[in-house]
Amino acid sequence: MSKIKLDFKFTIDGYQILSFQGPEVLSPADLVGLDLPAGLDNKKGIVISGRGPVWLYAYLVHLCHSFLWVATHDPRLGYVVVESHSIEYKPGDVIDS
Amino acid sequence: MSKIKLDFKFTIDGYQILSFQGPEVLSPADLVGLDLPAGLDNKKGIVISGRGPVWLYAYLVHLCHSFLWVATHDPRLGYVVVESHSIEYKPGDVIDS
Repeated sequence: MSKIKLDFKFTIDGYQILSFQGPEVLSPADLVGLDLPAGLDNKKGIVISGRGPVWLYAYLVHLCHSFLWVATHDPRLGYVVVESHSIEYKPGDVIDS
Repeated sequence: MSKIKLDFKFTIDGYQILSFQGPEVLSPADLVGLDLPAGLDNKKGIVISGRGPVWLYAYLVHLCHSFLWVATHDPRLGYVVVESHSIEYKPGDVIDS
């Protein structure tokens, strides 16, 4: 079973923030069976946030491909939109975090 | 026009490695208009490799979603498979780099 725990919260702006927790050093084997938590709304945007390796972000971005838009949290920049099916945002847009 | 340049090569193992080059500090605005180079084969796997921010990897993973499989290059681990339509690999598998 994956040692990575996913959690989320909705923001007042109507999108959701997906966060992850796990041991200090994660293993790619922890991707096996890792799935999105119930209750997310793919008709809204989603931000992936947390300290983690590129491959975890890449895996989660793929899981989220049906969402209205997907952004990743860059602590220095904000929420960087990386894919979008919305006219509201396009890839490269940065949302204040 | 994006300051990020994408390039690729095929490996003797039959997949392809997508690499990127750009200025030391990349801007999310450089995602605008950034597209995969011609000549890639989505019936084969693809590895994304290079020193770059999570949001660039996330954007490229999304562009590559139709490929047989997608891996990201973790210099400490190898090529970590993050999505797959192949029976050969599943997410979490690591291919020696």
